[in-house]
Amino acid sequence: MVESYYQAFEAYRQQHPFEGQPGTLYDPVNYIMDLGGKRLRPILALMGYELFNPNYEAALPLAYAIEIFHNFSLVHDDIMDAAPLRRGKETVHTKWNLNAAILSGDVMLIYAYDYLLLIDAPDRMTEILKVFNRLAREVCEGQQLDMDFEMRSDVSIPEYLHMIELKTSVLIAGALEMAGLAAGASPEDVRHLYEFGRNIGLAFQLQDDILDTFGEAADVGKQIGGDIVQNKKTYLILKAQELATDEDRSTLSALMSTPTVDAKSKISAVKALLDKMNIRQQAQETKEQYQNDAFAHLSALSIPAANRVALESLAHALLDRIS
Amino acid sequence: MVESYYQAFEAYRQQHPFEGQPGTLYDPVNYIMDLGGKRLRPILALMGYELFNPNYEAALPLAYAIEIFHNFSLVHDDIMDAAPLRRGKETVHTKWNLNAAILSGDVMLIYAYDYLLLIDAPDRMTEILKVFNRLAREVCEGQQLDMDFEMRSDVSIPEYLHMIELKTSVLIAGALEMAGLAAGASPEDVRHLYEFGRNIGLAFQLQDDILDTFGEAADVGKQIGGDIVQNKKTYLILKAQELATDEDRSTLSALMSTPTVDAKSKISAVKALLDKMNIRQQAQETKEQYQNDAFAHLSALSIPAANRVALESLAHALLDRIS
Repeated sequence: MVESYYQAFEAYRQQHPFEGQPGTLYDPVNYIMDLGGKRLRPILALMGYELFNPNYEAALPLAYAIEIFHNFSLVHDDIMDAAPLRRGKETVHTKWNLNAAILSGDVMLIYAYDYLLLIDAPDRMTEILKVFNRLAREVCEGQQLDMDFEMRSDVSIPEYLHMIELKTSVLIAGALEMAGLAAGASPEDVRHLYEFGRNIGLAFQLQDDILDTFGEAADVGKQIGGDIVQNKKTYLILKAQELATDEDRSTLSALMSTPTVDAKSKISAVKALLDKMNIRQQAQETKEQYQNDAFAHLSALSIPAANRVALESLAHALLDRIS
Repeated sequence: MVESYYQAFEAYRQQHPFEGQPGTLYDPVNYIMDLGGKRLRPILALMGYELFNPNYEAALPLAYAIEIFHNFSLVHDDIMDAAPLRRGKETVHTKWNLNAAILSGDVMLIYAYDYLLLIDAPDRMTEILKVFNRLAREVCEGQQLDMDFEMRSDVSIPEYLHMIELKTSVLIAGALEMAGLAAGASPEDVRHLYEFGRNIGLAFQLQDDILDTFGEAADVGKQIGGDIVQNKKTYLILKAQELATDEDRSTLSALMSTPTVDAKSKISAVKALLDKMNIRQQAQETKEQYQNDAFAHLSALSIPAANRVALESLAHALLDRIS
C-alpha cells in the first residue's frame, strides 16, 4: 500500500533531477537525493493529500519540495555534527568538501521553494509558503538548540521535548499540514493533521531513543548504544537524571560527560542504571501517550473512517518496531 | 536624494529585527545585518519601484528581503573564502564559529522569503518568487564558479564575465526586476530594468577590479593590490594573459600562481606588465560599454524622463569613482 506512494514519489523525483550548471554545485545535490531513505515525509504528504482528494499525484511537487528541504537539512547538519557517514555512504562534506556541502545545501533550500510554487492551489499558495517558512525556521531553531544543549548539563525534559519537536516533528507535521491545505481541507482538519504529525513525530523520536539503547542490533540495523557512547542526553538519560538518587545521578553524570574509552563496559554501566530506575518502561509510556494523542487527532478528521486506514496502518507499522 | 531611501530602509530594518529564539541562532543574524554597508540593493529596489509608483514605502519588504538574502550570501561566502573580516569587523564564523555561521545563514535565507510574502502584489506574487528563486540560484552558481576558477589556469574572459554576472550582477538586476514587477510595470519595462541592473552590475565589478589595482588607497578606502597579492584572476589579469607575448604570459602566470612573499615588489611587477599592454585603458573601455548599455536600457523605459533622474544620478555617482 505504502509502496505505491513510494513508487510514485521516486518516479517523480527521477524525472526531476538537478541539471543546472556548474556540475560541481549540482553533483552533490543529486548524490544526496539519490542516497535513498524511507521517503517518509513525502509519503506522508501524498497520503495526507489523498485523505481529501483522490488525485494524490497533484501533491508530488509538494512531496518533492519537502524531501529536498529535508535533505538540505541533512547536508548542513552533517557538517555541524562532523558526521562522516549518512545511510552508510560518505556525507557530502566528506566526499567533496566543506564549501561544496554549504553551497549545495543552499541551492537545495532555494529549489524547495521552486517546487512549492508548482503546487496547483493558487488560493492557498501564500498560506502554504508561510507554513513552509515557519517550519523551515523551526527546523533551524531545533538544530541550534540541539547544539546548545551539548554544552549544557542542566537540560530539562520539557526543553528536550521542545528541541526534538522542532528538529524532527515539525517537518512531519508540516508535510501533513501543507498537504491538507493544498487538498482544500478545512482549517479544523488541517489542525488535526498537523497535531497528528507533531505527536507521531515525537513518538518516533522517543522510539529512536529507546531502540538506540535497548533495541537489538539485528532489528534496528545499527550498533546499539551509539547515543551512550557519544554522551547524547536523550530522553532516557534526562529521565534517569530526574529520578536518580544523588549518588546514582553523580555516577550517571560522570559516565555521560567523559569521552568513551571502553564502549562495551560504559554501555552496560549506563544501562544498569537505567534499568534500576525502570526508564525503558517510562519512556515507552511517554511514547504511547504521544502515539495515542496522534491517533485521536487522526480519528477527529471529518472524513470517512475508511479513508484513514492507509495512514493509520503506516503509522502503526513505523511505531511497532518496539513491543 | 539617495539619503531618503537609505533612511527609509534603515528605519524599516530597525523596526524588524530578528527576535526569534534561541539567541545563539539569531544573534549572528542581527550582528551581520547591523554591520552596515551602502544598502545599494534595497535602495535600487525602492528607486526602481518609485519609477512606476510614487508610494515607494510599499517596496520596503522587498528591499529588506533582498538585503537579508545578500547578507545570507555574505555570511556563507565568508566561510568559503576563509575571510576573517567583513566591513572591518569580524566575520560571523570568526566571531562565533562555523556552525553558527552556517545555520544563521540558512535561517536568513528562509526569512528573505517571509518578507517577499509581505509584498502587496497578489497577482504577481508567484512571478516575483520565481524571479527571486532564479537569481538566488544564480548567485550560488556564481560563487561555485568563482571557487572552481581558482583551481583552473585556463579561465577565458567570457567565462569570467559570466561568473561575475551571476555572482554580483543578477542580484542587482533582480532587485530592479522584482521592484518593477511589484510596482505593476509592463513586461517590456521590467526587462529594461533588469538589463539596466545587469549591465550596471558588470560595470561596478569591472570598476572594482580596476580600482583594486590602479586606485589610490585614500579614494578606495582599502589597501591597493589586494587582488594581485591573493592571485585573483580578475578581468585585468585575464585580459593581459590574452594580449601578452609568450614571454610576458609566462612571467605573469608565474607571478600570479605562487604564494606572495614580497607584496610590494609583486604588485609593481604585475602592474608594470599590465601597463605595458595598456590594460587599464582597455578595462575602462569595457566598463564604459556596460555603462552605456545600462543607461540605454534606462532611457528606453516608458516613463517620463524626469522620473529616472534620481536613478541615473545614483548610478553615475557610483560609477564615477574612476575618471
